[in-house]
Amino acid sequence: MTTEKKSIRFGRLRRAPENFVTQDLADQVYQHGMDETRRGFLRKSFVTALGAATAGGAVSQALAADGEKVILDKLPWQMTLGQPVAARPYGMPSQWEANLQRRESPGLTRVSAASVAFAPLQGFFGIITPNGLHFERHHQGWYDIDPAQHRLMINGMVKQEMVFTMDDLMRLPSVSRIHFIECGANTGLEWGNVAVPSVQYTHGMLSCCEFTGVLLSTLLDMSGADLKKGKYILAEGGDGSGMTRTIPMDAALKDVMVCWAMNGEMLRPENGYPLRLVVPGVQGVSWVKWLRRIEVGDMPYATKDEAVHYIDLLPNGLHRQYTTIQECKSVITTPSGGQQLLDKGFYNVSGMAWSGRGKIRRVDVSFDGGNNWRTARLETPILSKAITRFNIDWNWDGAPAILMSRAIDDTGYVQPMIKQLREVRGTRSIYHNNAIQAWKVDPNGEVSNVQVG
Amino acid sequence: MTTEKKSIRFGRLRRAPENFVTQDLADQVYQHGMDETRRGFLRKSFVTALGAATAGGAVSQALAADGEKVILDKLPWQMTLGQPVAARPYGMPSQWEANLQRRESPGLTRVSAASVAFAPLQGFFGIITPNGLHFERHHQGWYDIDPAQHRLMINGMVKQEMVFTMDDLMRLPSVSRIHFIECGANTGLEWGNVAVPSVQYTHGMLSCCEFTGVLLSTLLDMSGADLKKGKYILAEGGDGSGMTRTIPMDAALKDVMVCWAMNGEMLRPENGYPLRLVVPGVQGVSWVKWLRRIEVGDMPYATKDEAVHYIDLLPNGLHRQYTTIQECKSVITTPSGGQQLLDKGFYNVSGMAWSGRGKIRRVDVSFDGGNNWRTARLETPILSKAITRFNIDWNWDGAPAILMSRAIDDTGYVQPMIKQLREVRGTRSIYHNNAIQAWKVDPNGEVSNVQVG
Repeated sequence: MTTEKKSIRFGRLRRAPENFVTQDLADQVYQHGMDETRRGFLRKSFVTALGAATAGGAVSQALAADGEKVILDKLPWQMTLGQPVAARPYGMPSQWEANLQRRESPGLTRVSAASVAFAPLQGFFGIITPNGLHFERHHQGWYDIDPAQHRLMINGMVKQEMVFTMDDLMRLPSVSRIHFIECGANTGLEWGNVAVPSVQYTHGMLSCCEFTGVLLSTLLDMSGADLKKGKYILAEGGDGSGMTRTIPMDAALKDVMVCWAMNGEMLRPENGYPLRLVVPGVQGVSWVKWLRRIEVGDMPYATKDEAVHYIDLLPNGLHRQYTTIQECKSVITTPSGGQQLLDKGFYNVSGMAWSGRGKIRRVDVSFDGGNNWRTARLETPILSKAITRFNIDWNWDGAPAILMSRAIDDTGYVQPMIKQLREVRGTRSIYHNNAIQAWKVDPNGEVSNVQVG
Repeated sequence: MTTEKKSIRFGRLRRAPENFVTQDLADQVYQHGMDETRRGFLRKSFVTALGAATAGGAVSQALAADGEKVILDKLPWQMTLGQPVAARPYGMPSQWEANLQRRESPGLTRVSAASVAFAPLQGFFGIITPNGLHFERHHQGWYDIDPAQHRLMINGMVKQEMVFTMDDLMRLPSVSRIHFIECGANTGLEWGNVAVPSVQYTHGMLSCCEFTGVLLSTLLDMSGADLKKGKYILAEGGDGSGMTRTIPMDAALKDVMVCWAMNGEMLRPENGYPLRLVVPGVQGVSWVKWLRRIEVGDMPYATKDEAVHYIDLLPNGLHRQYTTIQECKSVITTPSGGQQLLDKGFYNVSGMAWSGRGKIRRVDVSFDGGNNWRTARLETPILSKAITRFNIDWNWDGAPAILMSRAIDDTGYVQPMIKQLREVRGTRSIYHNNAIQAWKVDPNGEVSNVQVG
């Protein structure tokens, strides 16, 4: 697979002097205030700046943490006129972030148009996924569809069949909701053994956006859907693969959305522009892209992509079908596989947690392969069926360590170990691997994917 | 100024048959459910689809709302293999959205490097601002700074002066918070009279992101800031203009952040990559970009950009200084100036509300120039010092109308009319115009900027 360079974040740490203080941190403080122990430790961890700092004036010299002299003025960008406004009417990231890309895993599928581009979670922050790095999963490639030609039909067991243009839809009462989308096959490579080296490839079929659109219930209401007899929705996409999936009516009426926007702007072509289904908490394949038709029916549709694909072979020889909900899951995104810590000392360990059943209640983190656990801080707002960001302090003393995160959602469900999942589903499963992820830190600071238990 | 084409959203509405039903809508329903009146109205508003819709099969023909035959299959994108995954390692918007850009108002300033690029709010959804369309305001242009060379110094009334690299900072305990940023001069052109034709130029110095960084209080704590004597912070930027601003210590300790990320990825160069100050609720100039120094002192610094600029001349001849908080404000973003409605009938009227003092409590909307008001729906989560999205149903009967929104925040403060503001501050003010915005709809559907009262 395409190997990316080591994370430039942790890779830029210059080698520190040997006299870094190691000290056990007090138990996790839940608020963001600092207790004396942590304050003292952090203060010692950074070599102080010496030099001619004068109050009120610009500092021309200082010593940085590693003793290197740093000139704080007379840098090129302080002495020239910079770029004008609107130099880029639609802006792009810094050139220094060019290494952060979504990436295919070549050879994963035979055709790159029916493949995956994994999101680089190791470089993300907070809960919002940058639109340009949203993961991709296509069955017959992607298109940039002309929105003027796109239509959405509602038919089947309805009083009034209807056809909508994009203008028709975008006049309707809309809602905006933050939700994660995860492919059912996310982490699927890890069923049998450790397969891939970095969090981009273990967990990168995951993204989270503020989606805007009209509630499917509004459209069903407008068309007079038969709610007595109609028990299922068929959603059909307008791409070459004509993706079709069944949605149960109760889910359809509850929080399913027909969306045109992600994180404040129209959908990206790779994510179904101009229209896609949003099915909160449910695996990504049901979030039909380039959505063109909704049909109301009275039986599950047993389409190709739910009868033959997207099923799991169990050890008893039976197939597990229609498993739609993405169960509670979490992963540490930094430090994570493929990165390298060049320093002992204090780190903010960070990651994501999510549940298709509702909100995250708690995330615990272990640094010793699951023997001891500490509770992480959760960023707010904590939202239902959306990513929650967690952070926790860690003082690395240079010894080998195994980092793991374990999420609990508000149903009380606890994210399982891979061993527990295999006992039920064997090692030949493909979908719905929500097991705890472990990262090993070697004394030289290298972080790698490892399985525990 | 650069005039953009009429909004393609509303501009694409085909002329509808004359038999559209007009009907008064019932009073606003707060939940997203539909009452019978609205259901009946919406159903009649859209001409139904006729044609050979068969349950379970693809629909090859249907009639769209205007009687035009629509072919739902045999479109080019259904018959070919699309683009592969990771065709664009960092994706961009659809080609069909190319008209949505941030734009300068040429002539607003003498030099485009010290100017504004306005965000196209009319094309936004929800509360998150797409990073590529975040507004710009620079004083000596923008740069793409090498993060390896960037430093942050903490000095002044501290026990330990410190210099941080980006790696040093990004190891610290971080937080992620959603906040709006608004330039103090936003809507400033409208003080005297109606100046500009669209919401991009009346309100486009506004954006909202999930910011990630370390709390300033953490850095002050690490450096042992003297909290008895130290009452003010000076923040200094590393760009050519060397922007400096005073922050009172109580604000600094409360929620000010030193940030490196916006909406899940590193800051954009135009927004201060790799480091900026985030001062929730406070005018944008204090959110120092390319942040390089924090100094603790015991008096306000009276820097150029707070003593001479960013002040308001009052009718009594005195200057109003250090007005930092952005007061409660709202605006309807669609329909808005420069757009055109081609149709009578149902519309979802949508806009944004925000307050530098906390959460939005309520938004009311008028359709008759302020005589009658109805309460809008607010999208959740409703966050402190962040944008809140509001939506409200409207049935346009084709008569002239004047649309206005009025926000109330959780302090009880009510967004004022422009007349009320002028009574206090005259017409020569520049900053802090948070008045109610009015849009006039003519019988031909054209929407224009108008002042009421």
